[in-house]
Amino acid sequence: MDNYRILLQYDGTRYRGWQSLKDTSETIQGKLTEVLSRLDGSEVAVIGSGRTDAGVHARGQVANFFLTRRWEEDRLRDELNRYLPEDIAVLGAERVDERFHSRYQATGKTYLYRIHTGAVPEVFERRYVYHYAGKLDVSRMRRAGGFLTGTHDFRSFCGNKKMKKSTVRTIYGITVEETEQEIRIFYDGDGFLQNMVRILTGTLIEIGDGRREPEEITEILAAGERTRAGYTAPACGLTLLEVRYGDR
Amino acid sequence: MDNYRILLQYDGTRYRGWQSLKDTSETIQGKLTEVLSRLDGSEVAVIGSGRTDAGVHARGQVANFFLTRRWEEDRLRDELNRYLPEDIAVLGAERVDERFHSRYQATGKTYLYRIHTGAVPEVFERRYVYHYAGKLDVSRMRRAGGFLTGTHDFRSFCGNKKMKKSTVRTIYGITVEETEQEIRIFYDGDGFLQNMVRILTGTLIEIGDGRREPEEITEILAAGERTRAGYTAPACGLTLLEVRYGDR
Repeated sequence: MDNYRILLQYDGTRYRGWQSLKDTSETIQGKLTEVLSRLDGSEVAVIGSGRTDAGVHARGQVANFFLTRRWEEDRLRDELNRYLPEDIAVLGAERVDERFHSRYQATGKTYLYRIHTGAVPEVFERRYVYHYAGKLDVSRMRRAGGFLTGTHDFRSFCGNKKMKKSTVRTIYGITVEETEQEIRIFYDGDGFLQNMVRILTGTLIEIGDGRREPEEITEILAAGERTRAGYTAPACGLTLLEVRYGDR
Repeated sequence: MDNYRILLQYDGTRYRGWQSLKDTSETIQGKLTEVLSRLDGSEVAVIGSGRTDAGVHARGQVANFFLTRRWEEDRLRDELNRYLPEDIAVLGAERVDERFHSRYQATGKTYLYRIHTGAVPEVFERRYVYHYAGKLDVSRMRRAGGFLTGTHDFRSFCGNKKMKKSTVRTIYGITVEETEQEIRIFYDGDGFLQNMVRILTGTLIEIGDGRREPEEITEILAAGERTRAGYTAPACGLTLLEVRYGDR
């Protein structure tokens, strides 16, 4: 058995996310499992670096799996792309050490949240942005981003109420970029809880539009209660950009 | 009655084009007519700068129409965007001279044809590019573009066999850009016949992959027969970028 690692992209619009207990056929992992199992002639278990929510996109998701047959790397990539639906694409495939595990060994991830603020709705990128009509003060959002940076218990920003494992994570940095039509928030951290990036974004929006103060972040973190943070921003605006392995 | 000119964008994927005799409800013109007639309370006639084929996109289409009510320009733009489907957007609206006619007065147009040549299929831009797996020699395509530039009878590149009006047009320039993943062909001319940009592109592709010689263009033009030119490249790769008015 050889261990293969793939880098992949997907438009998450029509999926139930990376993984779902309800209906695996409408998940990214499900589509990959289906195609890989057919290619390999046996049930292949696909391990992703982490789950993305329903509707969330990826430009640099990483996954790994074991195949009984040996494949030339580019050939495997091409065969996968031939059978995968057009909203999922494998950018590259490589044979890796059998100990490589895309989830356990991930040391960092970068997410991008795109908020379209222009007066005119976006046509060509409409599936990949969240259209927000209000006025947002980016300097307030940046200040709040500073309070979020570092190692904290992010329980207040976790969408899973029954989360039993540790909710402590490290955010290396939050960068807020602004153009005429769009605000782009980059989240760089060692890992993110369920819905965490979307809740962080909803909270930053509530701070940007004046409903909350940047300084409230400290209290929200300390409370450890989901109800204290802001709303969950829509999935469509979110894209997993990169998963990192090894030392930072 | 006031004459209004609008600049608009659309993702043409699910439409029968700008205009269709069969089913106006699934056309861009039809959607605009529907929304404008409701806003104005009377049947509004929408004039476009020209028809785009089914599946063709636009980033800078121009149209005009007369309304019985006077509108503040940004308000009109916003009201249209509120009621138009999300794959059509009005970038701007302005009240213009009553003699302005978006079709008769157009003096130039620029189209872009995008050919995706990368080994990995495009996920996020998949609706706006034509994926072509073969190898294309861009220098041959550029040479052919030179033979096409100028004033010619483009009957061989016209998709309408029963075209009774003049098929003489002027191409100001054809620019072929190449990146690692994509070939972009820009067509700049005073006007284009039905399917003309797509047939020009199909012919350039056949020249780029070696099936034809750049010099054949002269014979194809002289023949005046559709069968002599190349195939009609798919609509999805084509976007109307700009319509110009006034002196060049």
